[in-house]
Amino acid sequence: MNESDNNENSPKIWSGAGPDEVAADLRPLVDFRDEGLPLKELEKMLEKRLVPHLVRYDRPAFHSLYNFIPEPGARLGGELALRWNQGVTNWIVSPGGVMLEEMCGEALCRLFGLGPDAAATFMYCGTYANQQALYLALHRAAERRGFDLARTGISGFPDPGRLAILTSADAHFSLRHAARMLGMGENSLIPVPVDADRRMHSGALADTVETLKGRRDIIAVAATAGTTSTASVDPAPPVIEVCRKVGAWFHLDAAYGFSYKLLPECAPLFKGAEEADSITWDPHKNFGVPIPNSVLFVRERRDFERMSIFGKYFNREEDPEPNPGLKSPPSTRPLSALPLVATLRHLGVEGMRERLRGPFRAVRKLAEYLRGEPDMEPAHRPDLSLLCLRVTPPGVPSARLDELQSYIHERIKREARRSLSISRLDDRTVLRLVAISPGVTFEALRETIDHARELAADWRREQGL
Amino acid sequence: MNESDNNENSPKIWSGAGPDEVAADLRPLVDFRDEGLPLKELEKMLEKRLVPHLVRYDRPAFHSLYNFIPEPGARLGGELALRWNQGVTNWIVSPGGVMLEEMCGEALCRLFGLGPDAAATFMYCGTYANQQALYLALHRAAERRGFDLARTGISGFPDPGRLAILTSADAHFSLRHAARMLGMGENSLIPVPVDADRRMHSGALADTVETLKGRRDIIAVAATAGTTSTASVDPAPPVIEVCRKVGAWFHLDAAYGFSYKLLPECAPLFKGAEEADSITWDPHKNFGVPIPNSVLFVRERRDFERMSIFGKYFNREEDPEPNPGLKSPPSTRPLSALPLVATLRHLGVEGMRERLRGPFRAVRKLAEYLRGEPDMEPAHRPDLSLLCLRVTPPGVPSARLDELQSYIHERIKREARRSLSISRLDDRTVLRLVAISPGVTFEALRETIDHARELAADWRREQGL
Repeated sequence: MNESDNNENSPKIWSGAGPDEVAADLRPLVDFRDEGLPLKELEKMLEKRLVPHLVRYDRPAFHSLYNFIPEPGARLGGELALRWNQGVTNWIVSPGGVMLEEMCGEALCRLFGLGPDAAATFMYCGTYANQQALYLALHRAAERRGFDLARTGISGFPDPGRLAILTSADAHFSLRHAARMLGMGENSLIPVPVDADRRMHSGALADTVETLKGRRDIIAVAATAGTTSTASVDPAPPVIEVCRKVGAWFHLDAAYGFSYKLLPECAPLFKGAEEADSITWDPHKNFGVPIPNSVLFVRERRDFERMSIFGKYFNREEDPEPNPGLKSPPSTRPLSALPLVATLRHLGVEGMRERLRGPFRAVRKLAEYLRGEPDMEPAHRPDLSLLCLRVTPPGVPSARLDELQSYIHERIKREARRSLSISRLDDRTVLRLVAISPGVTFEALRETIDHARELAADWRREQGL
Repeated sequence: MNESDNNENSPKIWSGAGPDEVAADLRPLVDFRDEGLPLKELEKMLEKRLVPHLVRYDRPAFHSLYNFIPEPGARLGGELALRWNQGVTNWIVSPGGVMLEEMCGEALCRLFGLGPDAAATFMYCGTYANQQALYLALHRAAERRGFDLARTGISGFPDPGRLAILTSADAHFSLRHAARMLGMGENSLIPVPVDADRRMHSGALADTVETLKGRRDIIAVAATAGTTSTASVDPAPPVIEVCRKVGAWFHLDAAYGFSYKLLPECAPLFKGAEEADSITWDPHKNFGVPIPNSVLFVRERRDFERMSIFGKYFNREEDPEPNPGLKSPPSTRPLSALPLVATLRHLGVEGMRERLRGPFRAVRKLAEYLRGEPDMEPAHRPDLSLLCLRVTPPGVPSARLDELQSYIHERIKREARRSLSISRLDDRTVLRLVAISPGVTFEALRETIDHARELAADWRREQGL
């Protein structure tokens, strides 16, 4: 790195190298030779060749996606988990790991105010949690029609092409993956339009249900608490009403959002969440714990029985000890509960709330600030700690605004001193700021806005506007 | 622990506590209070309350399942990955992580002698790798029938109830999970009988295909290289022949076994493996790297395109950089490539071979030894580093042998000084010894056998036999 890289005001948050340069640096690492290397030499090699190309998520100028450097408590737990490498499936391989996971799951249900029959299991990621939740929905729908989905498959439904899952138009693409993998196909996903704040529109939801009447079988409504594009929280009450009416499963994809249920100031957004049949939550998105750390909650613990497969040498039905491996497909699973438990005990629940609050407030303050700036156009009111906006300098024709946002994004990416993302909302290109790390302050976000202004000025000069 | 726990000859490999006792110890850990705890105090609490209940996989007397303490190189890589917590999905969050994963995948294809168009992706575990492999098989079958599985789902097949996947009768239950989740149902799995060494019987495979002719549509044959019950390796050539004949996908579930392809002495077992359309491999089973670390190989890299979903803010089709997140559903993924690369470079490929060889040879030697012992009955010839056997003392009626194996297993479990597993093969209960850790020697296995003899004598006394 040259001198300017160490500029105090905006140090690089990664090398900024292009793919060819990164590949050239990494090549010796994947040169798998017969002879080995001393640990010290290997460590130096990794520090020199790999580390510069890793993104510093702890820098306040990193605000593009859901990533962070683990909290000290999580790191303590993570290192212990790494050292012991417990395969948390059943008692025979990890009595402590198994029991910790079970008890952590129960404690989480209480912490989040879920019902008395609720239960939790650790998953690898929100994508597989969503997949499993929709599988459970399908399974229940099959039971009501008198057959066992696990044996018969989707062909047991009289007309599988009628199966439908309603989601917000802004729902995460993991639901598309789920629909694909579950054999329903993406045609089963019916998008419900969103309102001005990009939450699922309750009137549109009712209309969609009405339109589908007699033509499709709605087996589930998958609402989102914290959409990936704008962190909008779909209101649960209208979803609950529809699910009751048509007998559908209520899934809540709260992978990113559920953490905020712990903040009293956010509680109204989560009204009714505890009535969801299943909830996906990713502590690895904003709880300070390393990847992988994901949780699937169900309202009724017996729902997990639909997942169980008993074996002869493993997961034996006759074994009396608790067995978290019966609640999801994987038989090899890491001790994710340990870093989560360690962080919650180290920070305390109140400390965790403060951790979430910092960046959350920074985004609120940013939204207020932007309201007074004529050259900035927020794309929505922020429900949680994420804001999409457009830079709209006076004199730039609206037809060229998409181009301007792309220019700003591309320049920032090449500079490697900040990280923001870009997205499309309806027909508009927007810049997307995500505040996850506790280090992300209003000032840091404001500096990014100011820098975007400078880049917009550069573009106008280049374009003669 | 009392004094006898520290007996040099057979120290405990975990506390041996029952579920209630473990739960009582762990309770304060999951007591999520508002106030936090200093790190030091938390660390002491974890050492005192959790660690005694974790199993010491590094002890030679641990030989029940596929677990080990990570190698030093893996730990170096794992700690670096933990500290940086890179979300390896696309360039924006981890240029170094993305490129390392891509290059590691290519290097692994070369290391294992796969074809020039082969490609790899990291998965969370073998279960999801198997699920994805069978999804790809279904997708290809749909393409041949002229429709897009991703859109239409299984109902696009004229008669989805005819879809069939052939597996060995000893195949892992993750294939049952896959059949369930993919909407095919377990009825789609057709078990093929095994031979005396519990490999898929090639004559029975041909017979099964003949029997199904005109009644079922065989879309895939899923062979296993290293079954979980006996580590038997199904021969690939007859599977390849069937797949060519009926146009089926050849999936090889080599989650446990593939590592041994690197040993020249095991190479004959893997003849034809490189012709598999997809291969599941779990480095976290015997390569010295921590959970999660799993790989899915495909013979043709373009097969991964069937998995891709492009988004507006993420996985954008227009982004030019490599993106491993387009090869599987999860959008949040850990830097599994790093501990794997670090181990392979630290040990060297030859060092890794030696790591695998130690316990492999110990099991071979055990099998030879047992052949000369009239009170021991090996259940199969070991293909890899796993052996099932029965303790058969003279004078015990064969009708009571199952009971004896269960007694031995239960006693060993309660003693907590060794770990072996128990299984059923056809109608017989067997003890199952798995040698994964480099520390597992013939002597350690032999001591377990001798101890089983002592326990058998106890049982005979108790039973008056």
